[in-house]
Amino acid sequence: MAEVPVPGWVNPLYDPDDLRLPRIAGPCALVFFGVSGDLSRKKLLPAVYDLANRGLLPPGFGLVGVARRDYTDAQFAELVRQDVQAHARTPFREESWKQLVTGIRFVWGDFDDSSTFDRLHAALDKLDNEQGTGGNHAFYLSVPPSMFEVVVDQLESHEMVDQAKGWKRVVIEKPFGHDLASAKELYRVVSKAFPPESVFRIDHYLGKETVQNLLALRFANQMFEPVWNNNYVSHVQITMAEDIGIGGRAGYYDGIGAARDVIQNHLLQLMALTAMEEPNSFEARQLRIEKQKVLAAASIPADLDRYTARGQYVAGWQGGMQVPGFLEEKGIPSDSRTETYAAIRVDIGTRRWAGVPFYLRSAKRMPRRVTEIALMFKRAPHLPFDNTETRELGTNALVLRIQPDEGISMHFGAKVPATGMEIRQVTMDFAYAASFTESSPEAYERLILDVLLGDPPLFPQQEEVELSWELLDPVLERWAESGAPEPYPSGTWGPSSAADMLARDGFTWRRP
Amino acid sequence: MAEVPVPGWVNPLYDPDDLRLPRIAGPCALVFFGVSGDLSRKKLLPAVYDLANRGLLPPGFGLVGVARRDYTDAQFAELVRQDVQAHARTPFREESWKQLVTGIRFVWGDFDDSSTFDRLHAALDKLDNEQGTGGNHAFYLSVPPSMFEVVVDQLESHEMVDQAKGWKRVVIEKPFGHDLASAKELYRVVSKAFPPESVFRIDHYLGKETVQNLLALRFANQMFEPVWNNNYVSHVQITMAEDIGIGGRAGYYDGIGAARDVIQNHLLQLMALTAMEEPNSFEARQLRIEKQKVLAAASIPADLDRYTARGQYVAGWQGGMQVPGFLEEKGIPSDSRTETYAAIRVDIGTRRWAGVPFYLRSAKRMPRRVTEIALMFKRAPHLPFDNTETRELGTNALVLRIQPDEGISMHFGAKVPATGMEIRQVTMDFAYAASFTESSPEAYERLILDVLLGDPPLFPQQEEVELSWELLDPVLERWAESGAPEPYPSGTWGPSSAADMLARDGFTWRRP
Repeated sequence: MAEVPVPGWVNPLYDPDDLRLPRIAGPCALVFFGVSGDLSRKKLLPAVYDLANRGLLPPGFGLVGVARRDYTDAQFAELVRQDVQAHARTPFREESWKQLVTGIRFVWGDFDDSSTFDRLHAALDKLDNEQGTGGNHAFYLSVPPSMFEVVVDQLESHEMVDQAKGWKRVVIEKPFGHDLASAKELYRVVSKAFPPESVFRIDHYLGKETVQNLLALRFANQMFEPVWNNNYVSHVQITMAEDIGIGGRAGYYDGIGAARDVIQNHLLQLMALTAMEEPNSFEARQLRIEKQKVLAAASIPADLDRYTARGQYVAGWQGGMQVPGFLEEKGIPSDSRTETYAAIRVDIGTRRWAGVPFYLRSAKRMPRRVTEIALMFKRAPHLPFDNTETRELGTNALVLRIQPDEGISMHFGAKVPATGMEIRQVTMDFAYAASFTESSPEAYERLILDVLLGDPPLFPQQEEVELSWELLDPVLERWAESGAPEPYPSGTWGPSSAADMLARDGFTWRRP
Repeated sequence: MAEVPVPGWVNPLYDPDDLRLPRIAGPCALVFFGVSGDLSRKKLLPAVYDLANRGLLPPGFGLVGVARRDYTDAQFAELVRQDVQAHARTPFREESWKQLVTGIRFVWGDFDDSSTFDRLHAALDKLDNEQGTGGNHAFYLSVPPSMFEVVVDQLESHEMVDQAKGWKRVVIEKPFGHDLASAKELYRVVSKAFPPESVFRIDHYLGKETVQNLLALRFANQMFEPVWNNNYVSHVQITMAEDIGIGGRAGYYDGIGAARDVIQNHLLQLMALTAMEEPNSFEARQLRIEKQKVLAAASIPADLDRYTARGQYVAGWQGGMQVPGFLEEKGIPSDSRTETYAAIRVDIGTRRWAGVPFYLRSAKRMPRRVTEIALMFKRAPHLPFDNTETRELGTNALVLRIQPDEGISMHFGAKVPATGMEIRQVTMDFAYAASFTESSPEAYERLILDVLLGDPPLFPQQEEVELSWELLDPVLERWAESGAPEPYPSGTWGPSSAADMLARDGFTWRRP
C-alpha cells in the first residue's frame, strides 16, 4: 500500500540518511463531511497538513471539503490555510502548502440534496484525473450520527462506493451509538455501502503516543511483563479526569453522560490494551483478537449499586474561579439526571487477571485534567523490616500517563537517608517529552494516516463496540431507574459513593 | 542497647514531633589508634561529630585519640575541632561541640611501649568516672595490619579487654589480609583478645546509602523481586571505576592491586547483597547467613585465563590532562606487575542465579569515577514488531548507582513519537538527592554508630572474608605466574582482554 515519494516531491522534514522506511500513504482523496465544524478546523485539517509536511502524504493526494457553505475551492483553501497556521503542530512551510493546495477542493450543498453528491462525484472524478488519486476515496463523516444514513445512502445511490475502482473507506467518530441496539443500527446503516474492513471507527485516544507506547512498553521489554498479572497486581485504576465542565456541549452531553461519552469507548479500549495478552504481531487483526478477548471476558459485578458510582457536579471552585453546577449550565434542563462522573468496577475472567478489579472512572470538573492507567501492586509478601520502618511505605505503582505530560512513573519504597532503616515512597519518572527530540504527532495524524494506509490496528471494530455496550447497558438501565446522581462540588474528586465503592474492596482512588 | 537521651541533653536536630525512635548509642568511649592519619582526620573524627550533632551519641560519651604525638587533651580537641569544621557533613554548632568536647582525651606514645597503654588505661578509667562511659570501650585500629598484633596484645596484657566490666569491641579496616592464609592469621591475632561478636570489620562501601537502599528496594517492594532471577536477568555487571591513579598510595598499592584492594571486599560484598535470598529480618545474623550462602555458592570458571582479566595503566589523557603510567608513578618499581584493572566472572550455583554470570571489575584511571550494580535483562522472548522497528532497542537494565549521584536508573524500550511503531532505548531515573531532603549520612557515621550500638548488620564476618579469599586466591596465584598485566592507556575503559572476556559470553561492558 505504501508508495515511495516520486523524485520531484518536496519533503523538507525527510532526512535522506534516515534508513527507516516511513509509512507513506498511496494516492487517494480524503473527503470531509462537516468540514466547517470545530473538530475539522482545529484537529482534522491541521493534521492533514502535518502529515503532508512530514512527507507522509503522496503527491497524488486530494482533500475535499463538503459543507453547506458557498465557498470556491480557493476560498476553502484559504480557510484551510488559516486553520493550519493556527493549529498545526509542525511549522508552516510554503513548499509543503503549495503541494497540498493543488489537491484541495470544495463541494457545497445539503447532504439530503442529491445534487450535492452529483457535484461531489464530479469533483472526485476530476481529482482522480488531475491529481492521480486513482479512485481511492476516504469519506470522513464528521457529522452527527443521525446524518450517517443520509450521507451513506447518497454515496451509494451516486455510485461512489464501488470498491472495484480504487478503494472506498468510511471514517466515523464516536459515539458509536448510545446503547447496544443503536450501535447495531448504526452499523447496519454504514454496512449498507461499506464492507466491515472499510469502516474505520476513530477513537482519538488510541492515536495518542502513550497509548501506543503502552504496547511498546509491555511487549518490547523484558522487565515489565513478568509482573503484569494477578500474582503481583492488586488492582488497576484507569482515570480520565477533566477539569472543565460541559462548556458549550450541553446539546450533545445531556442524556449521554460520562459513561457513554468516555467509558464505553476510551476507557474500555485502554482497559483492553492494558489487560490483553501479547498479540502475535501488531497487525490489525491480531490486536483486534486480543482486545475482543478481554472485552468478552469482562463483567461488572451483579450488585450494580455497590460496584458502580455516578455523580453530577454542583457549583464550586475550580482553578480559583467560582463555577456553576451542571444543572445551571446553559442548555441543561434543571431536572437532568445525566451523570458527569461515572465509575465502574470491571472484573476480567482470565487466568492473568482473575481477582484483579479494574476500576474505570471518568468525570468533569475534577481538580485537574489527567488521563492515566495505574497498575497498583500488592504489598510485598514479607517485609523483613520493623513495623515502624515501613509506616511511610505506600503502594507500589506503575503509572502510564496518557495526558498531559505523557510518560511513565514508578512509585516504590526507598530507604530514607539516615543511620536507621526507614522506607518511604519515592517516584521514578520517565517523561516522553524530555526523552525524545521528535515532536509527538497529534493523535489524528496517526489515525488519518492509518485510514489512508488501510492499516487500522488502533481502530475499534464493531465487535468491540458491541461488547462494550453489552457491558455498559445494564449499568445505564440501572442508573436510569435509580433517580438522580449524587451531587459533588466542582473541583473535588467526585461523589462519596465512588470512594465507598473502592473502600469496600480495601482500596482508595489515586489522586493523580 | 539504645538509650533515650537524658533531659538536659542538647539535640538541635531532633524534632520532638518525630515519633520514630532514633537509634542512639549507650554510654561508651571510642578509642582511635592512629588518630593522626588521613582517614581519621578526614572521615572518622568528622563522622563522630556528625553523630553527636544528630543527637545519636549519648551524654556519656568519650573520644580518645592515641598517637605518637605530644598533645594535651585541649590541643587534641582543637585539632578535632579543625577537622570537624573542615570535613563534617552537618553544620558546626557550638552546643553540640561543647557537649562532645567534654569527653575528648588524648594519650601519647608508641604502640609497642607498655607505658602508652598504662596511660590509656588510666584515661579510660577516668572517663568512666567523669563521663559515665560505663566501661564500654570500642578500639578502632586505624593502623596498618602489621600493627594489629602489638596493639591487641598490649590491650590484653593491660587488662583492657575484660567483657565483664562493660563491653569491649575492636574495629578493623580492610584489607582483611592479602590472601586466605594471612586473613586467617589476622583473625587469630585479633581473636586472642576479642570474641567473634566483638570484632567489627569495616567495609565503608556497605555503609553507603545506596547499598542499604538495595535491600530496601528489593525487599520492601513487590515490583522488582519477581524479575530478580535467572528467568529474566541475563547477567550482572558490578563496576567500581576510579578516574584517579594510585596517587600517594604507592607503598600500600604495589603488590596489592585492584583485585585485593576492591574486589575481595567491596565488590564481592555488593555481589552478595545483590544475589542473596531475602533474609528473615535485617538482624545481623540473618543477613550474614544469606551473604555467606551466596559466597559459598560462588565460583570462577576453571579456565582462569578466559574468565578473568587484568591490566595496568600506562600514560595517557585523563580529564584533559596528560597523566603518567603506573610504572612511572613515584614509589612504584619499574617492573611492578601489580594490576590496576581487575575483572572476574563469578558464577553463583543457586536455583536463582544458575546461568547468570556476575562480572566484577575494578580499575583505576578509567574515563570516569563510578560505582554501580547493573542487572542486565534478557531480550523479551518474542517481539511482535518488525525487525527494523526494534533496531535501536538496547538491553533492558536496572542500574543501582552507588556513587556518585546515588540513585536508580531503568533502561528500557519506548516508542519513538512518530506515526510508525519504532522502539528506542530510554532511561527512567530516580536520584536519591532529588527525592529526599534528608542529607545522606556519611558511610562512616552509620558504621561507627553500628559499632557503638553493637548492631553490625553491615559488617562482613570472618567467614565471608575467608570465602572471598578462597574465591580469589587461585586467580591471584594464576596471575602471579602469568607475567605482566596487559597495558591500557589511562582514560580508557581498560584492556582488550577484559572486553574479550565478555564478548565470548555474548555481552559487552557497560560504559556507565
